[in-house]
Amino acid sequence: MTGNPTACVLIIGNEILSGRTQDSNLNYIAKKLASSGVLLTEARVIPDIEAVIVSTINEMRAKFTYVFTTGGIGGTHDDITAACVAKAFDRPLIKHPEAMRRLSEYYAKLGNVEFNEARQRMAQMPEGSELIDNHVSVAPGFFIGNVYVMAGVPRIMQAMLDVVLPQLSGGPPLVMRTVTCNIREGDLADKLAAIQLRFPSVDIGSYPSMRNEKFITQLVCKGTDAALVSAANDEVVAMVRGMGEEPEVA
Amino acid sequence: MTGNPTACVLIIGNEILSGRTQDSNLNYIAKKLASSGVLLTEARVIPDIEAVIVSTINEMRAKFTYVFTTGGIGGTHDDITAACVAKAFDRPLIKHPEAMRRLSEYYAKLGNVEFNEARQRMAQMPEGSELIDNHVSVAPGFFIGNVYVMAGVPRIMQAMLDVVLPQLSGGPPLVMRTVTCNIREGDLADKLAAIQLRFPSVDIGSYPSMRNEKFITQLVCKGTDAALVSAANDEVVAMVRGMGEEPEVA
Repeated sequence: MTGNPTACVLIIGNEILSGRTQDSNLNYIAKKLASSGVLLTEARVIPDIEAVIVSTINEMRAKFTYVFTTGGIGGTHDDITAACVAKAFDRPLIKHPEAMRRLSEYYAKLGNVEFNEARQRMAQMPEGSELIDNHVSVAPGFFIGNVYVMAGVPRIMQAMLDVVLPQLSGGPPLVMRTVTCNIREGDLADKLAAIQLRFPSVDIGSYPSMRNEKFITQLVCKGTDAALVSAANDEVVAMVRGMGEEPEVA
Repeated sequence: MTGNPTACVLIIGNEILSGRTQDSNLNYIAKKLASSGVLLTEARVIPDIEAVIVSTINEMRAKFTYVFTTGGIGGTHDDITAACVAKAFDRPLIKHPEAMRRLSEYYAKLGNVEFNEARQRMAQMPEGSELIDNHVSVAPGFFIGNVYVMAGVPRIMQAMLDVVLPQLSGGPPLVMRTVTCNIREGDLADKLAAIQLRFPSVDIGSYPSMRNEKFITQLVCKGTDAALVSAANDEVVAMVRGMGEEPEVA
């Protein structure tokens, strides 16, 4: 999987760290990136603190092919993501002309809503940014360099990601096969480790969990070489059958 | 809030980054820490790669009062958290005598299950670790220094956290008050920013979202000084009323 581009997701928001909000954006982005062949290699949740956001963006953009941020791009005082990205890239924070045009047109049409300074903040981004459209809200996201700045509201973030994904250079998609059985990990661990050794480029994971109050074990083969993933999965299936159980395969 | 201890959550698991699993542990831990007065300041999701886990643990344990890890403490080849923590602390990885005693007793009682090498791996931890009990599974978590190593399975993790929390030095709990209204952020941004300026030690956030296909705005006052949070919240309520709306208060 070493040839695939990599990515980091940066979730900017006190509301996740305080427990107020259960994040759902990471899982959505992770799935989409996997099928685009972009390897999500890290995710961070950080608070709305300028120094933290700026240094994290600079660390991440040097380390990964793509950085995706969510949150902090509205018009209130706690929306500081755009200003922080500008600082990280050492660019002035400007009102993007096309974003201004769209927002001003939108509010003019509404008639009774003033296109005030708070609303104009939604057009602020680092000089040189390009817009990320979305069909849900008139306020765009933006990208500069390899940093993609998206909304925190899931429906808007999803619409932005849909626009961004086709623009990325991906790789072969991540393929995943799952075998579910009732064999306890302690009974299959050695045999599974032996399969992992035979398929070093396939990532084989074992995940115990509970279903209907019973422990189950899910064995996941994952990688970007579909033929190898399939071959490893076949061995996992054969292992489970060899232990006297007919597995569920997905 | 500067006097409170801080914490970082480290979610160790390829399955979160591949999108296979939606994490729910972070939100659970975040809420529990908030009510214990431990400020969750960062969370990271990292893959099952030794070098990444070791360096992240060392970075985090120097930076925060407490580090909580989830995932990677089972008995299969992909469970490398205990070995990585040992490496981070430069301690030998040993089979903890009390954990061995409990596991061996448990499997002896079951009768038909061999206490094999894979199962003994669940007793492995850095020398000097102390056990974290849980009432769901016989396999314990452990802590060493300020690093608390917990299971990834939510029910087991929750049981471990319940045991850990009373042992921590917390601070005054994080108090949160929420005002929900239909006023758009663009109309209240200036007034809200003015309230934030008057209450610098209260963290005031504005969160737009959708409810029944309508945009709503939630205004959250948060902090460890309950009286100040309450006073800030009163001003937010007064602001909403002043704009002609009766808010929902929680």
